[in-house]
Amino acid sequence: MILAGCSRREPQSEPVIGLLTDFGLRDPYVAAVKGAIYTVHPSARVVDLLHQVEPFQIWQGAYLVEEATREFPKGSIFVTVVDPGVGTERAPILLETRSGKFFFAPDNGILSLVVEREGMRRAWKLDKPSFYRAGKSSRTFQGRDIFGPEAARLAAGMDPDQLGSRIEKVESLNLTPASLLGQSFQGQVIYVDHFGNVITNIPRDLSSRLQEGILLRISIGEQTIRAPLVGTYADIPSGKLGALFNSSDYLELAMNKNSAAHQLKVSEGTRILVRP
Amino acid sequence: MILAGCSRREPQSEPVIGLLTDFGLRDPYVAAVKGAIYTVHPSARVVDLLHQVEPFQIWQGAYLVEEATREFPKGSIFVTVVDPGVGTERAPILLETRSGKFFFAPDNGILSLVVEREGMRRAWKLDKPSFYRAGKSSRTFQGRDIFGPEAARLAAGMDPDQLGSRIEKVESLNLTPASLLGQSFQGQVIYVDHFGNVITNIPRDLSSRLQEGILLRISIGEQTIRAPLVGTYADIPSGKLGALFNSSDYLELAMNKNSAAHQLKVSEGTRILVRP
Amino acid sequence: MILAGCSRREPQSEPVIGLLTDFGLRDPYVAAVKGAIYTVHPSARVVDLLHQVEPFQIWQGAYLVEEATREFPKGSIFVTVVDPGVGTERAPILLETRSGKFFFAPDNGILSLVVEREGMRRAWKLDKPSFYRAGKSSRTFQGRDIFGPEAARLAAGMDPDQLGSRIEKVESLNLTPASLLGQSFQGQVIYVDHFGNVITNIPRDLSSRLQEGILLRISIGEQTIRAPLVGTYADIPSGKLGALFNSSDYLELAMNKNSAAHQLKVSEGTRILVRP
Repeated sequence: MILAGCSRREPQSEPVIGLLTDFGLRDPYVAAVKGAIYTVHPSARVVDLLHQVEPFQIWQGAYLVEEATREFPKGSIFVTVVDPGVGTERAPILLETRSGKFFFAPDNGILSLVVEREGMRRAWKLDKPSFYRAGKSSRTFQGRDIFGPEAARLAAGMDPDQLGSRIEKVESLNLTPASLLGQSFQGQVIYVDHFGNVITNIPRDLSSRLQEGILLRISIGEQTIRAPLVGTYADIPSGKLGALFNSSDYLELAMNKNSAAHQLKVSEGTRILVRP
Repeated sequence: MILAGCSRREPQSEPVIGLLTDFGLRDPYVAAVKGAIYTVHPSARVVDLLHQVEPFQIWQGAYLVEEATREFPKGSIFVTVVDPGVGTERAPILLETRSGKFFFAPDNGILSLVVEREGMRRAWKLDKPSFYRAGKSSRTFQGRDIFGPEAARLAAGMDPDQLGSRIEKVESLNLTPASLLGQSFQGQVIYVDHFGNVITNIPRDLSSRLQEGILLRISIGEQTIRAPLVGTYADIPSGKLGALFNSSDYLELAMNKNSAAHQLKVSEGTRILVRP
Repeated sequence: MILAGCSRREPQSEPVIGLLTDFGLRDPYVAAVKGAIYTVHPSARVVDLLHQVEPFQIWQGAYLVEEATREFPKGSIFVTVVDPGVGTERAPILLETRSGKFFFAPDNGILSLVVEREGMRRAWKLDKPSFYRAGKSSRTFQGRDIFGPEAARLAAGMDPDQLGSRIEKVESLNLTPASLLGQSFQGQVIYVDHFGNVITNIPRDLSSRLQEGILLRISIGEQTIRAPLVGTYADIPSGKLGALFNSSDYLELAMNKNSAAHQLKVSEGTRILVRP
């Protein structure tokens, strides 16, 4: 677009490498992954997505990966170092979605919702010795020794078939999807955000018959409450609970200027039953 | 400078897009805004300013926006998703300062101190349907659906008049400025930083007669203390309180290696009276 | 590589400027440093390493700086605004390692472990008036007024000799290294990470005779425990403590899916004695 006629490759074609980890924000580990990437590919464009993921349920990690990467364009590369079952042996993999995004991750199911939404085109097991450590990879830091450097090579234009061996399937979480029981919707809390909004796994399309404005009967944890289905946070009466389909089309419980999670005393994994 | 004669546009002319939000650091929302920006403008340069703003007083949010963006060069673009009055309907706006910086924000007064300091040159109401969502914008996530994508279009070179309709004025907070009462200065605490430094809204120019070295009588909250006016943190005796004009020329109360806020038991909004 | 024949300088040769500070994540200070850098050098590539460092022991800060910057390539520039002894007068310096990395920092010993590992090639005292503030530098914010702008000039290609005066030595911490006492290794805890892993200053090479699989007798704080020396987290029995050489080759105490620091009630500075 801008340097046309001047380069064989458009500057904007340098893909971004997004990092999403369970590393602490004050730990040196995210920086180490970045350093490894720049060492392999000095012109890399590295972007922080989110860190310090502490999954209560594996579904939470899978949810965050899917949500945080959804808006990115085709060709984007993600390094997903999230391992709720930390300590168990997982093969490092690379997965390409049908939409053309690339995910480096441990093969622990963390990409389940990404695959469910975007579909899997190809996948590779990264089973070659770490070129970055000249084969002497640490056994405790795959992000620095494998995921980061391999993402850098992919960003620099290397063919994924040179990075590992094709595999036909990847680990998938045995997620209990939300379900329709007669008139009721049954699901669970998958994420509580910084504002205290309670996000469930009940998708809009499952419950498309619900009309804005109706009063829902919601059983969650030990209690049953009534809350209106509204269009946006502004429609929730002050100090009251409301339900809405959020920006990702999941049913969410929220309060006006307050924490719904605190009010309801719920956290990830809590079962929820919604009746019109 | 570097690619002279080679491109029609200098690479350094790609403006940075700075993000400043009230999103949680572990939430997927900042990543979603970034993804939307890269989708619209793949060569965008996105920079994190700060996140997780939790304004106690609206002035705190306005203070952080002004402080965090002040040093940036002309042409910089900011996406300010901070809404202390979350839930109420605010028009999304774009504001250009006299110094040539661009701010995307809800029209809730959050830009008050920016406008006070840098002046407003032009402003627009972003009243067109979201091109990014093909008109089907979510009502709960303007950062992803409007601010991010429109900032990307501006960065890519689009004329702001194509993004919205001109407006003549934007919302301004009814801020009580610090005042001079005889010999005394009256103001309030506007921010407590990570170190526990207590920053007030008393500017250096209001109190320019105060000489370094004098002992101030400071009434704050329930107490009245005496503290010297010093030049830098190093001049405060160990374990004691001192006052200084900080790097932004506001009067600040600080302790040597300790939290002044903790010692004084104050927070944002606390009134302060300073007498020489 | 990509724009060959088109520019006098490869685009990937633009060095990264990594930021490592003790600023709060919600404070505007990191953003101010970034703004100053972009003002001086609009095409700068700024990277967050880590922030909000709160050193209990000075060794912790020095450890984090060394760990966070180790993987970066030759030519990288770091702005290290970490001052555990905040308030005392330190000269701002620039240090070049033998490996060709550049560090801007206060001369307070924070670079001790970097120098120990990579060696010092040259160093400068930044004793000229701040060009960025036209000589009117604030005395409380060197990151914004000196380190950031000078790092930007270095990244833009300025000769370091134009930034300050050569000095022959920099401040070095009087660190007590780990030691070998007969069969025992004596050291201390230098960092506790987000996972609760307890990292000591006992390096692998000091203790290379220790074989994986042996049971270690570890005296730490008030207690003496037995823990196996394992190869990776996965080898630690569930709910038990284990010891391993981590990805940086330091001896580390860890638990499987639990916080070793919480279990052992230790923090930075705690002495440790390890016997085979």
